[in-house]
Amino acid sequence: MSLLLAMTGWHVEDWRSRFKALLPDMPVVTLGEAFDRRAVHYVASWKHPPGSLAGLPNLAVIFSLGAGVDFLFADDRLPEVPIARVVDPDLTTRMSEYIVLHCLMILRQQRRYDRQQRDRLWDDDRDQPAARSVRVGVMGLGELGRDAAHKLQVMGFDVAGWSRSPRAIAGLQSFAGEDGLPDFLARTDILVSLLPLTEDTRGMIDATLLAGLAQDGRLGGPYLINAGRGGLQVEADILAALEAGTLKGATLDVFETEPLPAESPLWSHPAVTVTPHNSAMSEPLAVATLIATQIRRHQAGEPLAHLVDPARRY
Amino acid sequence: MSLLLAMTGWHVEDWRSRFKALLPDMPVVTLGEAFDRRAVHYVASWKHPPGSLAGLPNLAVIFSLGAGVDFLFADDRLPEVPIARVVDPDLTTRMSEYIVLHCLMILRQQRRYDRQQRDRLWDDDRDQPAARSVRVGVMGLGELGRDAAHKLQVMGFDVAGWSRSPRAIAGLQSFAGEDGLPDFLARTDILVSLLPLTEDTRGMIDATLLAGLAQDGRLGGPYLINAGRGGLQVEADILAALEAGTLKGATLDVFETEPLPAESPLWSHPAVTVTPHNSAMSEPLAVATLIATQIRRHQAGEPLAHLVDPARRY
Repeated sequence: MSLLLAMTGWHVEDWRSRFKALLPDMPVVTLGEAFDRRAVHYVASWKHPPGSLAGLPNLAVIFSLGAGVDFLFADDRLPEVPIARVVDPDLTTRMSEYIVLHCLMILRQQRRYDRQQRDRLWDDDRDQPAARSVRVGVMGLGELGRDAAHKLQVMGFDVAGWSRSPRAIAGLQSFAGEDGLPDFLARTDILVSLLPLTEDTRGMIDATLLAGLAQDGRLGGPYLINAGRGGLQVEADILAALEAGTLKGATLDVFETEPLPAESPLWSHPAVTVTPHNSAMSEPLAVATLIATQIRRHQAGEPLAHLVDPARRY
Repeated sequence: MSLLLAMTGWHVEDWRSRFKALLPDMPVVTLGEAFDRRAVHYVASWKHPPGSLAGLPNLAVIFSLGAGVDFLFADDRLPEVPIARVVDPDLTTRMSEYIVLHCLMILRQQRRYDRQQRDRLWDDDRDQPAARSVRVGVMGLGELGRDAAHKLQVMGFDVAGWSRSPRAIAGLQSFAGEDGLPDFLARTDILVSLLPLTEDTRGMIDATLLAGLAQDGRLGGPYLINAGRGGLQVEADILAALEAGTLKGATLDVFETEPLPAESPLWSHPAVTVTPHNSAMSEPLAVATLIATQIRRHQAGEPLAHLVDPARRY
C-alpha cells in the first residue's frame, strides 16, 4: 500500500521527505521512478501530467495538494475515485491578507506614492476617499470569499458579494446568479474574483463583464483583483479595457498561462500588478500533515473530509 | 466677532470658502490681509508662523485643524486660551488603513514582488510566514493605536501595545513605561509608532531603541513604521541601523523636516518607503464642519469637546 506523488513545477523530493516523516510505514513513490502500480492506494497530486494516473487498479483516493481541483478535471483519463481537497485554515487567512493588502494599495494610491518617491516628490491627494466611499464586490462566497468580505468590512470598505447560487450571509449585501450580476457589477469599484474554475466560470471576466463595472465611483474608475483562477479571465479583454480607460487598474495573481510568459504585456503595464500565483500559499508541511491525517482516517475506515462533488467539480 | 485662519502650507482661500459656507454670519479673516485684531474670537491654525497669534486681546479659543497640537506648543508666544483638537472619526479609520496596508506590504513582501515584476521574474517564497507568526508592536494606545491594534489582530497578526502610562485593553498584551519598553521591543518584528510628540517622546526612535527590536523573527529582521510625528525619530540612526542590517526596512510617513528635503538619502534607500505625511488625512470639509460645530457650541455657552491638556500637551 503506497502513496504516489504526482506533480509538476514543485520539488517532489521535498514532498517525499515530508510524507516519509509523517507516514513512516508507507512507501512513497514518484512518477519519475519505477514503482509497482498495483500497490498505489493513494495519490497526492499537483498538476500531474494528464493520463499519468491511469492504470492504478487499487487506487482509493486522489488528494489535491491545494484548494483547487480544476487541474484534475482537465485530465480526461482521471480515475473515477473520490477526490479530496486541502482546506488549510492558514490558506483562508493568507488569501484575506492578499485581498485586503491589494484593496488598500488601490484605495491609498500606493502606486502613485511609489512613483512620487522615485521622483523625490512630496505631494498628496487632499481629496483621498475613505474606505466607506469605496465599493468592493467579492465574486465567490465560499470560505475564502466570506472571510475576505468580513475583513474588508472591518477595514471600513462598502462590501457586497456575488455567488452563482443565492447565499444569505449576515451583514453582507449579496447578489446571485446571472440575473443578479448586472446590479452587482454596477455598484462595484473594486471587483475581487475568488471563484473556482468550472465550465460556468471559464472566460467569465471578459469585455462584457468589465464594461458592467461602476464608472461613477470615488476611485476614478473600476479595478479588478483576480486571485481565483487564471482561466476565469480573458487577458486580451483586460488589456483592451485598461487601454480604453474603462478599467483603471488590475491586480492579477493568476493567468491564462502560468508561469506568466516573459513576453506578456501584463508584466510592464503601468496599471497592472503581477504576483506569481502566491496569494494563498500554504506552508508545505501543513499541507502534508493534513493529507497524512486524511490517509490515516481512510485506513481506519473513517470518512474523508473535504471531498469534491464531481458534478460541481469543486 | 471673527474667525482668523492661520496656516502655512495649505490653501487658505479653500478653507475660507468652507468656513464661510458653514458660518455665514461670521467674518473669516486670514494672516495675509489687514484685519481688526480685537474682533478675532476664534483661531483655526495649522502650523501658523510662531508669534502670529500674539496680540489678539479677545481671543477665546484656538482650534487645531488636525489631531496634532505640537506645532502650537512650539510657539513660545502662544496666547493662553483653551486649545481644541480635531477628533475626526474618519481619521482613525484612515490611520488604520495606512498601518494595516504597510504591515501587510511587509508581511507579504510586496517590494520583492514589485522588483520581480520589473524583472519579469516568476518566483515565490515557499516559506512565506503567516500573519500569526509575525509580532507587531504598537507604540501609543490612544484612539488611533487601539483601533490599529484591533484591526491588525483581525488580520491575524500577533499584536502587543506599549504606552507611557499603563492601559488595560481587552485582548491586547500591553506594556507600559520605561520599565516595560525593553520586553516590548524584544518581542516586536514590526514596530508601529503612533505616539504624540512631547518632550518625553522627542528623539525616542534612536539607535538604542532600534537595537532593542527582535532579531529572531520570521521576517529576517525588524521593521519600523512611523506614522506618528517626525520629531520622534533620529533619521541618522535609522539609516545606520539599515546599513548595519539590524533594521530590515522602514516605512516613514513623517520626518524630522517636512516636506522631506530632496537631498535626503531616505527617498532612494531600497529598504525605505516614503509617504508625504498623509497616513491619516481628514477630508477638509469634515474638519471645517467639526470646528464650525464647536464654534456654535461655544457661542451658545456649551462646553467645548476635545480640549487639550496644557500640562500634557496632547
